[in-house]
Amino acid sequence: MTRPIIGRVEPEQRRTSGAPNPTQSGREAGAAREPGTARIAVDLLGGDQAPAVVVDGALRACQADPTLQLLLVGPVEAADAVLAALGPGDRTRVRAVAAPTGPYVDERDVSSVESGVRTAVLAVAQGLADAVLSAGNTGATVTSAALGLGRWPGVRRPALTAVLPSAAGRLVLLDVGSSVDPDEATLAMHARLGAAYASTVHGIAAPRVGLLTIGTERGKGDRLRRAAPAVLAGLELPGAGRYVGLVEGNDVVTGGAADVIVTDGFTGNVLLKGLETAYALLGTPTPEPARQDARPDGRRDAGHGNGGADEARAAVLLGVGGTVVVCHGAASGADIAAGIGLAASLHRRAAVPAIADLITDPDPQSPRGGS
Amino acid sequence: MTRPIIGRVEPEQRRTSGAPNPTQSGREAGAAREPGTARIAVDLLGGDQAPAVVVDGALRACQADPTLQLLLVGPVEAADAVLAALGPGDRTRVRAVAAPTGPYVDERDVSSVESGVRTAVLAVAQGLADAVLSAGNTGATVTSAALGLGRWPGVRRPALTAVLPSAAGRLVLLDVGSSVDPDEATLAMHARLGAAYASTVHGIAAPRVGLLTIGTERGKGDRLRRAAPAVLAGLELPGAGRYVGLVEGNDVVTGGAADVIVTDGFTGNVLLKGLETAYALLGTPTPEPARQDARPDGRRDAGHGNGGADEARAAVLLGVGGTVVVCHGAASGADIAAGIGLAASLHRRAAVPAIADLITDPDPQSPRGGS
Repeated sequence: MTRPIIGRVEPEQRRTSGAPNPTQSGREAGAAREPGTARIAVDLLGGDQAPAVVVDGALRACQADPTLQLLLVGPVEAADAVLAALGPGDRTRVRAVAAPTGPYVDERDVSSVESGVRTAVLAVAQGLADAVLSAGNTGATVTSAALGLGRWPGVRRPALTAVLPSAAGRLVLLDVGSSVDPDEATLAMHARLGAAYASTVHGIAAPRVGLLTIGTERGKGDRLRRAAPAVLAGLELPGAGRYVGLVEGNDVVTGGAADVIVTDGFTGNVLLKGLETAYALLGTPTPEPARQDARPDGRRDAGHGNGGADEARAAVLLGVGGTVVVCHGAASGADIAAGIGLAASLHRRAAVPAIADLITDPDPQSPRGGS
Repeated sequence: MTRPIIGRVEPEQRRTSGAPNPTQSGREAGAAREPGTARIAVDLLGGDQAPAVVVDGALRACQADPTLQLLLVGPVEAADAVLAALGPGDRTRVRAVAAPTGPYVDERDVSSVESGVRTAVLAVAQGLADAVLSAGNTGATVTSAALGLGRWPGVRRPALTAVLPSAAGRLVLLDVGSSVDPDEATLAMHARLGAAYASTVHGIAAPRVGLLTIGTERGKGDRLRRAAPAVLAGLELPGAGRYVGLVEGNDVVTGGAADVIVTDGFTGNVLLKGLETAYALLGTPTPEPARQDARPDGRRDAGHGNGGADEARAAVLLGVGGTVVVCHGAASGADIAAGIGLAASLHRRAAVPAIADLITDPDPQSPRGGS
């Protein structure tokens, strides 16, 4: 398997105080930079209907965001299709990068089509792009990102992190497909990553972190879920997060029990695909304002500042030294565009470096000055 | 752990031919008896809000079904509450059975409250009731049922089997909480049980059975899901069922890929609770009539004959020598009533013996006369 590579994390933004301000919005929490250019490397070859769907999504994203720049990685003809559809003034915003087309063989035996995401990741590693978007094979994306961008200290398996609507507001669900056979230590790191995401991106003070299982009585669940609570209960969580114990499938829909729900990547992926399909068919659970005001702890989810970008049907890979967004293999053009928008939004808010900072901070209790 | 006990299956009804008739309805498929009395043993002590919710559910069930008889197992005061609310003419339909209240200790260390389900199971084993309904601890119910009613030959772990609405009709999902760390052999037996249920109860000819995983490329999924397809692909499935390969979370909602979806009890329970909560909040996916007519294989789900009883938010335990229905711990009175209705419907149709017959038939291809 891959060797552990310690991430080259460069905290672009340090928090100005050790504890988040409960009243600041998500945008304010992560926003050290002014909104500006975002350069997204897009894997044209990833996805069931690539490159056509990716070309469509890239075009939509360009049209929706005039300060977006795209690095289109893959067949030159596909990149040309995007360029041809753009007005002359916008063509300077798109660059094509050919991906190597020869067979690519590594220990995971991913095929040559994965060279797109490898090249896109390298563009970020080399400073040519700010973030990566791929709808390709998740395993190949995780491996490429871990190798090309490095992993944060202590992260054995990066977490694919999704945001779902719930009846109580937005909910962070992880892992949704990266770590299919995790141990307790990986679940514990993912709990920390999820708390850092909710704190940084959603501006939630003291996010509540729950462990997904199938019954809240002691001793319920499979081997992993019987072993994990002891590890999670003693864990210090970033952003003043707290472990609230066991939650169940219904809590992912109601959102009332936790702001962050941790599970293995197999269960998370199955549940995410089930719920996203149900919501696409039947509508999305939305919080009633009265209910939100009436949260038992009096807190409110204040993170309404990112224009809904993180409600994209896409997931962020947390634990690697860069901003990597993954769309479903079956993503539509609109989904790809939303994923590109999410990548741009996270970059502009310097969200991933801020999360890395929370995770790798050796002493989370000490007050720190801005860098 | 528990010793393997071979079930005392008494096939109450044998199929009159080896292959189901594609045009017959679900009711016709399982209905050798005339609809008549059904005696359901109800565990008054099972569920988060027992006995109040169970009392409510028992009353509703009595009022909805004039030929129902209930054996209420648990505190006599709770049974008295049901009797007091019924008219004098209906009181003969309800009998109270005190459950032992002393501590009950076995190798699973289930507490004394589980004695309700043990006593209810014994009532079925002794011929005093036709089926069991419990909203108590699933593990205790499975253990009590396996010990008290026996397991069918080859069934190591009975399967908790749920029916979900989908955009293509009803879908059988199993296991939803009995077998949390299964191996490939258990998944294979559950595939057989699911096919037999879809054939017998839903009247589906040649049910399609899929394995739930997180991507349809070769090599995706966790250890279990990478190992299981080889076992499932070579399996002979009852009811002329066929294994259609890997499916994903979205297929549980759309229903287009399979009639039966097999998974481990952990993933199944999480997904079931998530989707049931989403459907309760947002509405239920329903097939468009035109879509149903347009199934690629021209088949139709003809099993509309059981009055919607098996759309109850309840699950049937398959693989034990009796009819056992399990409701959520958080079930409402209406859910309990629907679960009792499901138990009565399955009994009246002799569904569980018919499924046992399909599973334990040593030569499913040979034509058999009625018994």
